[in-house]
Formats: sequence, structure tokens, C-alpha cells
Amino acid sequence: MSQSENQTHTKIITFSEYGSPDVLCIETETQSTPGPSEVKLRMSAVALNRANAMFREGIYVYEAAFPSRIGTEGVGTIVEIGSEVTDWSIGQRVNLLPPENESRDGYAAEYVIAPQSKLLPTPEGMSDRIAATAWVPFLTLYHTFVEQKQAAEGRWIVLPAASSSVALAANALAHQLGAKTIGLTRTREKQSLLEQEGYDALVISGEENVPERIMEITSGGADFIFDPVGGPALETLAASIKPGGEINVYGALDAEVTPLPIFALMTSGAKISCYMVYELLNDPVRLAKAIDYFMDLFENSQLAPVADKNEFSFAGISEAFRHMESNTQFGKIIVTI
Amino acid sequence: MSQSENQTHTKIITFSEYGSPDVLCIETETQSTPGPSEVKLRMSAVALNRANAMFREGIYVYEAAFPSRIGTEGVGTIVEIGSEVTDWSIGQRVNLLPPENESRDGYAAEYVIAPQSKLLPTPEGMSDRIAATAWVPFLTLYHTFVEQKQAAEGRWIVLPAASSSVALAANALAHQLGAKTIGLTRTREKQSLLEQEGYDALVISGEENVPERIMEITSGGADFIFDPVGGPALETLAASIKPGGEINVYGALDAEVTPLPIFALMTSGAKISCYMVYELLNDPVRLAKAIDYFMDLFENSQLAPVADKNEFSFAGISEAFRHMESNTQFGKIIVTI
Repeated sequence: MSQSENQTHTKIITFSEYGSPDVLCIETETQSTPGPSEVKLRMSAVALNRANAMFREGIYVYEAAFPSRIGTEGVGTIVEIGSEVTDWSIGQRVNLLPPENESRDGYAAEYVIAPQSKLLPTPEGMSDRIAATAWVPFLTLYHTFVEQKQAAEGRWIVLPAASSSVALAANALAHQLGAKTIGLTRTREKQSLLEQEGYDALVISGEENVPERIMEITSGGADFIFDPVGGPALETLAASIKPGGEINVYGALDAEVTPLPIFALMTSGAKISCYMVYELLNDPVRLAKAIDYFMDLFENSQLAPVADKNEFSFAGISEAFRHMESNTQFGKIIVTI
Repeated sequence: MSQSENQTHTKIITFSEYGSPDVLCIETETQSTPGPSEVKLRMSAVALNRANAMFREGIYVYEAAFPSRIGTEGVGTIVEIGSEVTDWSIGQRVNLLPPENESRDGYAAEYVIAPQSKLLPTPEGMSDRIAATAWVPFLTLYHTFVEQKQAAEGRWIVLPAASSSVALAANALAHQLGAKTIGLTRTREKQSLLEQEGYDALVISGEENVPERIMEITSGGADFIFDPVGGPALETLAASIKPGGEINVYGALDAEVTPLPIFALMTSGAKISCYMVYELLNDPVRLAKAIDYFMDLFENSQLAPVADKNEFSFAGISEAFRHMESNTQFGKIIVTI
């Protein structure tokens, strides 16, 4: 698509009813100009999240206002800046943090207006396809892996949903920090891909006894379990932890109630905490430290997010969502614009 | 009752079917002699626990073998020792830790045979009525309050079930360590007794908004919540915690499932742990330290357990249980023998 600094229209992805990927369509909309502390971006890629699919289906924590945009993570180039924007300039490539209102500001669009508070620097030398998902998975890890030192040298980290983008990021960061990883995956379908990512061990949760296998691999229990699933399976995970270990629940992919595994925790003395990345995003001082930390690793090619090998165009966004919902993807699904 | 070193019989409390306090009766039984590493005690008092009532009703974690004894905490004097017992001597007053098998070895009896591993020294100068319950409530606190320093100077500790014996012990120990306490109690019934115990604040959970009141009292949330209840109320408690605080669940008085309060923990960054005193009882080195720690405080009258003011005799044990189950007691119910 052509880029024009005076463009007055933008193509956007929109939907007007909850449903399957088929509800998504492309429309052309009048594009306003950025406010004093906003910028306008020519988007180059968006990364799709499971939360976006749940939002589209009407089962997410917030509702859509129809017609609704979609998309909460992406990369683009600044084409226009508001009068009070001093830290960013035209021509700069930047990443977007999740918007305040996905329906109004969703990032699956040719042009997007965003407040400067939602901008992050894009790592140099990283392709748009990879850069689109650079930040959120890694920032999700910063508090527990880096600040709390859960992934210190020699520690065993258990990663349920091993092929999810946060688990893949966690696996890479854990190795960077000298820790060892155990990936949990339901079937053997993605086993060879997971092995290529360097997991130190894999447990096939649909076939194997999870606590027994983890006890065996770690000789006494996991040091840290970083779990996006929750639900009744947490009881099983809690039986896999080392005395004094910790479990962090950073998602609730299982819609069922998560019972506190009281007996397993009484036995192990382990602790449970929960986490969401907004905690860090709302703390400018620690966020700046986290950005420096990862930027260094990104730009030295010591760390990179994993993108699914399938490429999807803007017009192919429904197909991209279908691929995600088939559960056959590996790494983050990226739509280039 | 008369004491004889060559006594061959003992009166015991026994029951042969699950049920109300009425199932308990006194029988006389042949008394064996202690094995090489056992001692025989002339019991002077037993402390009743809610767990004993649940055991008698057939709803506890372990079952009874009929006819069954009862009782898991008490004090007595050594009247006979096995050939290999060197650390204890005849005439010494000692406390008993919970037996391996309550049905077989329950402590509500005139004479009891116990392995020396179950003996603790009884604080000097403490009456039998108070000494009967000296250890278990305080040992339950040692790990979190002392080792983990949750009750350090100036911290706000929330104690649900404020009139329970562990909460009363926790209130006293917290003050000893310079912390401040908030007691939670359902109604105003025990308010003045709780105030006399020196709680820094009380929240009447049946009338007041618990998180609001705790936020108000603490100006920002509790540092530590020490909860014997669990169940759905944990969600409310979790909304009362300070960022970075901790909740410890050391019982499950509520028989309902305890949902992990994921959202409240994501918001506060608080952690949940669970605890049972067996962890300490099974660790001789730390147990010895804990005993030294409390013995010093007991013998200097800086700390004492709270016993209910009603006195019950051996023959009145059913009445003592009825008193406990009426929920009108205050402090531990003691039966003297």
C-alpha cells in the first residue's frame, strides 16, 4: 500500500457482530489527525493474541462496541506527530503497547493514531514480522524472571502451554539467565518444534504423569512454575514443586475456577502469586529499566521472539485467526500490512 | 484420682460410633507398660481442638477405628520410662504432640503411653490448665511469624476467626514482635473479650465491608493475612492486602473449595502460601530452636496461651465438646483429668 503524509483515509479491520473469523472485514474510514500528545503511525505488522480472538467472540474481559476494530500489539512507522510530542519523531519505527479501548483503537489498520504513552522503541535490525511481537511476551516475564530472579542459574522452570508465545519467550530468557526449562504440551504434535527451541525437557501432559515426570527430571521438584492456564490442573502442577518453590499464574486460559491447592502447598511450603503485565506497564521507572534490559539482548541477537512461519496479509486476517484457532501454530501469528 | 506407679488399669474416653458429644463415654482398660523408647504419663489435662470434634463426627481427614480414643494435645507427668529413654525422667511434667493414631493413642485418658519423640518440655510455673495448650498454637506461628518475619515491627497482621486459639496466640505473638493486629469476627458477641485481648482493631465481618475497613485501618492494605478458614471468603480477604503482601492459609475450616483469587493477586502482586505445623514438627533442628524461642517467652511471662474460663472435668468431656460446638467459647477448652 502506498504511504502518504496527507492521507485522509485508512483501511481498517472491523467487525459488527461477535463470531468466527468470518465476521472480520476490511473497510475504509476517514482518518483524523493526531492530538497534541498523539502520533500517527503507518502500521507494518500486527501480532495476533488469543485475547483478540476471545474479544471477537464476545467472551473476553471487556466487550466490543460495534462497529469494532481489533488488535492490541503491533509495529509501525511514525508519519505525523502532535504539537507536544518531543520524544518521538517522524520516520521512527515504534512498537505499540495495548490500547485503552480495542474497539476504538485496535491496531489491525493501515494507519493508527496512538498516544505517545503507548509507544516503545523498536529494536534495530529486527524485521517487522519479528518486531511486531517483541515486547509484550518479554515484558510479561520481567518481574518474575529478572526482578524476582526466579530464572537464576541452575533453577528448573516449568512452562505449561510450551508452544505459547510467552512460554517460548520464557524458554529463551530462562536459558539466557542460566536456568533450565521443562515444557508441558498436551500431545506429541509439536514435540520436534519444541525440541528445536531448546527446552531441556518436555512432558506430554496428555500421556504422562506430570508430577512424577517433573520430580524425576528435576530430582526433587521444580523451582518455579510459570502457568498461563490455571483451572483444576493447578493441583497437579502444585504437586510438582520443590519445597520453598513458587508458582506464578499469569493467565486463566482454563475458564473453570482454579481451586487453591491447599494440601499441596501445605506439604511443599510453596507460594502462589499471580501476574499481569499492566503492573509493569503502569510503572514508568521499572518499565524503562525493563526496556533497556531487553533492548540490549534484542540488539545483540541474544534474544528474539518466535513468530509462526506462516505469513498472512492484511486481507488474510480471517485466515490468520483461523490458523490460531486450529491450535496448529507455533509461535506468534503475524499479519503484515 | 490416685496415682500408682504399678497401676494396671486406666480410665479412658472412648466412642464406638460417629456422632454428637453424647457418643463419648468413660471406660476402664488394661494399661500396658511402655516400650523401650516410650514413657507412661499420668495425664493432668487435655486441650480440645475442633479437629477432635470433626474426628468424632467422622468428617475429619482420618477415620476412627472403633472403639476409638480421642484427644491430640495435653500435659501430664512421667510415671514410668522405657529402658532406652535417656532424655526424660520420672516425675517430669511434659507436653504431648499429636499422636500418630488418635484412635489408638488419643490423650483423653487417665494414663497414656507415648513415644519419647512426642514429648515437649512443659514451661515451668505454668498451670496445667494453661500448659495443656502451650505448644501447638505457638508452634503453628513460628515459621511465618518468626522465621519469615511476617510479624515484624509496625506491620499489620489480619487474623480471621479472631477468637480461635491460634488467632489469640497470633495476636499475642504479633504484639510481642511489634506488629499490629486486626481481628475478624462474624458478630459483636465476643467483641469486648477480643478488645481485652488487645487487638489493635476489630472488623465485624457479618456487618462491615471487610476490604474497605481493612484498607481504612491500615491506610493501604494488610501486610500479612493469616487465615484458618479458606473458602470463597478468601477472595474478599485477598482484596484487603497491600501490594507485595502475603496471605497464609493454615486451615480449611470452610469445607467449600477455596478459589484462587487470581484477579486480586494480579492487582496486588501478593502471594499465597499454606501451612501446617507438621512441617516444623518433622524438622528436629528447627523445632528445637522454636521450643527455645517460646520457652523463654513463656517462662518470662511474656507470652501465654488463652484458655476458656469454663472448667471441665474428665467426666464432663461431652459437656466440654458441646461448649466448643456452641461457638460461645473464648480461648482453648481444657479438660482436667
